[in-house]
Amino acid sequence: MQTILKSKTVEVRIDTEGPVVMIGERINPTGHKKLAAALKEGNFGYVRELAARQVEAGAHVLDVNVGVPGMDEVSLLPELVKVVADHIDVPLCLDSNNPEALAAGLAVSPGKPLVNSVNGEEARLQSILPIVKDRGAAVIGLTMDDNGIPNDAETRLSIAGKILERAASIGIPQEDVVIDTLVLTVGADQNAALVTLKTIELVRRELGVNINLGASNVSFGLPDRHTINQAFLALSFGAGTSCVITDPVKLARTVLACDLLLGRDPYGKQYIEHTRKQQKA
Amino acid sequence: MQTILKSKTVEVRIDTEGPVVMIGERINPTGHKKLAAALKEGNFGYVRELAARQVEAGAHVLDVNVGVPGMDEVSLLPELVKVVADHIDVPLCLDSNNPEALAAGLAVSPGKPLVNSVNGEEARLQSILPIVKDRGAAVIGLTMDDNGIPNDAETRLSIAGKILERAASIGIPQEDVVIDTLVLTVGADQNAALVTLKTIELVRRELGVNINLGASNVSFGLPDRHTINQAFLALSFGAGTSCVITDPVKLARTVLACDLLLGRDPYGKQYIEHTRKQQKA
Repeated sequence: MQTILKSKTVEVRIDTEGPVVMIGERINPTGHKKLAAALKEGNFGYVRELAARQVEAGAHVLDVNVGVPGMDEVSLLPELVKVVADHIDVPLCLDSNNPEALAAGLAVSPGKPLVNSVNGEEARLQSILPIVKDRGAAVIGLTMDDNGIPNDAETRLSIAGKILERAASIGIPQEDVVIDTLVLTVGADQNAALVTLKTIELVRRELGVNINLGASNVSFGLPDRHTINQAFLALSFGAGTSCVITDPVKLARTVLACDLLLGRDPYGKQYIEHTRKQQKA
Repeated sequence: MQTILKSKTVEVRIDTEGPVVMIGERINPTGHKKLAAALKEGNFGYVRELAARQVEAGAHVLDVNVGVPGMDEVSLLPELVKVVADHIDVPLCLDSNNPEALAAGLAVSPGKPLVNSVNGEEARLQSILPIVKDRGAAVIGLTMDDNGIPNDAETRLSIAGKILERAASIGIPQEDVVIDTLVLTVGADQNAALVTLKTIELVRRELGVNINLGASNVSFGLPDRHTINQAFLALSFGAGTSCVITDPVKLARTVLACDLLLGRDPYGKQYIEHTRKQQKA
């Protein structure tokens, strides 16, 4: 199954048969003081730099999140969408908890963006899905609901199914919903990653849609998070993930190695080019 | 299923339910000039150093290979087995193509060693299995036969089944055969890793025995082999591998990260201890 995203002129296909699509996560001020300060000052040069650096490193799509305490997302998100879209021609992923901000951002986004995110909470389903439908966008659906994040794969699967049904009921096609199976840190619960991997397998088998992963939560609180994140990406691709929100500067090479190993990079062309480019840089 | 290996006093269990057992691969002169020269000179201090360094880095078992052109394996293998076993108390994996050398090495090995390896070739089945049976050892069975290494998972599975049958027919229990599904480089064939991953899943599901992997072939001829090897280890553990022949100095942390992610390292104890030890070193 293919989820098609578009910028002004570039089309990106998230495809259940891979290769993996990388969504660059760095335009997000959470825990990123320099970006938070830049957004408050209206210094968008740094945002352009983050955008360019991620695409150079292999990002196919850019996540745009402007959640800075004290800032008005409803005006800032569309402003930043324009800044990024004018600078770099790749599809965008609009990332906010605020439905109004998402609607305002979508109104100025070129092409066909991705919305990050809806989940199984009744209020979110009602507020987000109509915005996605009106704009003809795609949307990430998180497998959590009014009862929080379930501890078992079967319940996460059922939430994914509910999101797909509700999307279909207002005319959003199944291929425009990308399910994010969520992951908690294995530092707190030794089964946290296993539940996510099982959910990925179940959603892939039972629902057949594209699956997104935000890989870095899994290692929260642990030493050498990078090695854990690398290993978890590989395990998740083996289970059926086709899209990741990640830092391509750190993890693109691992993603490309997995594409190569999973038969999605003929002659290792992408992997070899990427590695040579980085070795020169 | 558990494959039990023993040294003088240490027992190691390769368990299909993990955690992964690491067999240190460094005592092997192939492509390792310094070791080849040391073996020719009878300088075993370097061998002891390689043994200690690998166990320090996380190896549970040590592979011992003495295949140097011009040297007599039948006398050198038992000599080296004694050197290593006197220095470090972990189970050994005796690695040779020469049945006489294996018999001589097994005769002086303490505990219960592992033999590397038999395969589906008629001559190997006839020469190796009786030696394994006589010594009460365990054995690695490679999924290749007189026709070479099959390109498809089903044929590799059938060779694994044949090795298990032949072993059983002379009284070697199923748990003492560890199947190695083999892997060729993805640089030459984009499906090489996929075939191996499918074989791992099939052998695990159909035969239920432990599976060994020699991970580094997969990246032969490609740049940044380390990233590919890391990713392939993770993918193979996801598919069902429970034992690897690898360089623990380079890859133990990835192996331990996978154990953690697959729910086999409660509270991340092994991973955290290993990482802290390396950060101090």
